[in-house]
Amino acid sequence: MELNLYTHPDDLSDAEAKGKTVVVVDVLRASSTIVQACENGVARIIPVATVEEAAKLLSTLERKRTLLGGEREGLPIDGFDLGNSPLEYTEQVVKGKTLIFTTSNGTAAITKSASAREIVLGCFLNLSAVVTHVISSRAKKVAVLCAGNLGRLSLEDFVCGGHVVDRIVDGTRASTVLNDGAVAARALANALGDVGEAVRNSSHGLRLAELGFEDDLEFCSKVDNYVTVPIVEDGRISPQNRRRC
Amino acid sequence: MELNLYTHPDDLSDAEAKGKTVVVVDVLRASSTIVQACENGVARIIPVATVEEAAKLLSTLERKRTLLGGEREGLPIDGFDLGNSPLEYTEQVVKGKTLIFTTSNGTAAITKSASAREIVLGCFLNLSAVVTHVISSRAKKVAVLCAGNLGRLSLEDFVCGGHVVDRIVDGTRASTVLNDGAVAARALANALGDVGEAVRNSSHGLRLAELGFEDDLEFCSKVDNYVTVPIVEDGRISPQNRRRC
Repeated sequence: MELNLYTHPDDLSDAEAKGKTVVVVDVLRASSTIVQACENGVARIIPVATVEEAAKLLSTLERKRTLLGGEREGLPIDGFDLGNSPLEYTEQVVKGKTLIFTTSNGTAAITKSASAREIVLGCFLNLSAVVTHVISSRAKKVAVLCAGNLGRLSLEDFVCGGHVVDRIVDGTRASTVLNDGAVAARALANALGDVGEAVRNSSHGLRLAELGFEDDLEFCSKVDNYVTVPIVEDGRISPQNRRRC
Repeated sequence: MELNLYTHPDDLSDAEAKGKTVVVVDVLRASSTIVQACENGVARIIPVATVEEAAKLLSTLERKRTLLGGEREGLPIDGFDLGNSPLEYTEQVVKGKTLIFTTSNGTAAITKSASAREIVLGCFLNLSAVVTHVISSRAKKVAVLCAGNLGRLSLEDFVCGGHVVDRIVDGTRASTVLNDGAVAARALANALGDVGEAVRNSSHGLRLAELGFEDDLEFCSKVDNYVTVPIVEDGRISPQNRRRC
C-alpha cells in the first residue's frame, strides 16, 4: 500500500488524489461534527465550499427538512441554523434532516479530493473505525489529507493523521510505503502521549477556547467514541454510504 | 519572539516573509553546499531560480572566475561546472570564485523569501551558529522555512527546522510564541534520536543514495561541523555578509 499524508489541501493535487482513498482529517471540527451528525441520524449531508453555494442549494430544497450548518473563522454564519460545534448536532436537531454544510478548512479538503476513488472522513472520534474500513477495503493507494488551517499545518490534524497512518501500518498485512509527511506525523503521534493535550495546545484549539468552545475540544479528543465512517459519494454523505466498523 | 516554521516555500506568502528573519533550511543539499562553499573561500554566491537565469547571468561575468553549480532531480545540469554535492565544493575548486547556483528546492526557498528583513541559510552543519546568530540579532519575528521537496514536507528539513526552533526557544531570553508547524517539528526533533537516521530514511535521502550520493548523506548529517552563517543580501552571499558564530 502507498500511504501518503499531506499537511493541508493545497499539498494534494487533483492528479495525486485521483484513484486514491482519501481520508479527510479535520479534528476541529468538520470531521468531528459530520461524524456526530451521522451518529445522530442526519438523513444526508451535502458539503459545499462557499456560503453562496449553500444558499443556492437551500433554495432548491424543502426548507423545513433542511439545515444550514458551518462556520467562518470559528463562528456561526449569519442566517445559518447551526454553527460548527459537534455538540449542537443532537438527535433532536438533525434526525431525518438534510444538512448543507460549509466550513473554512474541512469542506475545502473534501472538495479538493473530488477525483478520489473514495473520500472518507476521519477524526479521533472514529479513528479505529476509519482504519478498519481502509484496511478492509484493500485500498492500494491511500492519502491522509489533513485539513490544516488556512493552508498551513494544524497540530491536531497532523497528530490525528499520524495515528491513522500508525494504525494502518500496524493493522494491514500489505507492505506499506510512506511519504515523508506520513513518516513525520506517525513518529510525532507516537512521541506525544495525550491527544487531548495536542488538541488543546494547537493554535486552532487555543482560538476555539478563546471563543468559548472548550467543551468542543474535550469532545473532539475522545478516541474511538463512535464506529461510524462517513463516506462522500457524488458530493454527499447519505445513509447508504456510511459504514459501521 | 514570534517563531514560525513552514513545511515548504508555498506555505510562506510574501506578506508573511516581510520584515522577518527567514532561516532557509535545505539539508539535502543547497544549504549544506552553500555553507561548505563559504567555508572553502568562495568569493560570492548568487542563487538563481532557473537554469536560464544562470546562463544569462554567466554571460555578464568573467567565465574563468565564475562557476555554475546546482542540480535538477538530484543530478548535475548539462553544461554546469558543478552539481549539488557539498563534497565537490573544495577549497581548490571554489576559492576566490563567483558561484552561480540553482537547485530544485533550496534556491526557490531563497527567492520566495525576497521580502524578508534578513535571509540566513541553515542546516545541520551550522545549526548552533545559525541559532546563535538569530538570537544575538534580537530578531522579533523569525520564520524557519523548510525547503521541502517539490512543494511537500521533507523529513530531513522538518527535523532540522525542529532543532533550530528547539535551540532558539531554549537559548533566548525573550518569550517565544510558536505556530503549529514549529510546535510539531520541535516535538518530532526531540523525539527522534540520531539525525543521520532521519536524513538517510527521508525520501530525498533514499533517492540520493540510489543515485550514488551516500557520502553526501553522512556529510550533511554532521551537526555543528562549521560556524559559518551565510546571509543573503541583495540577492547574493558575499564575504561581507557571512557571520562566524
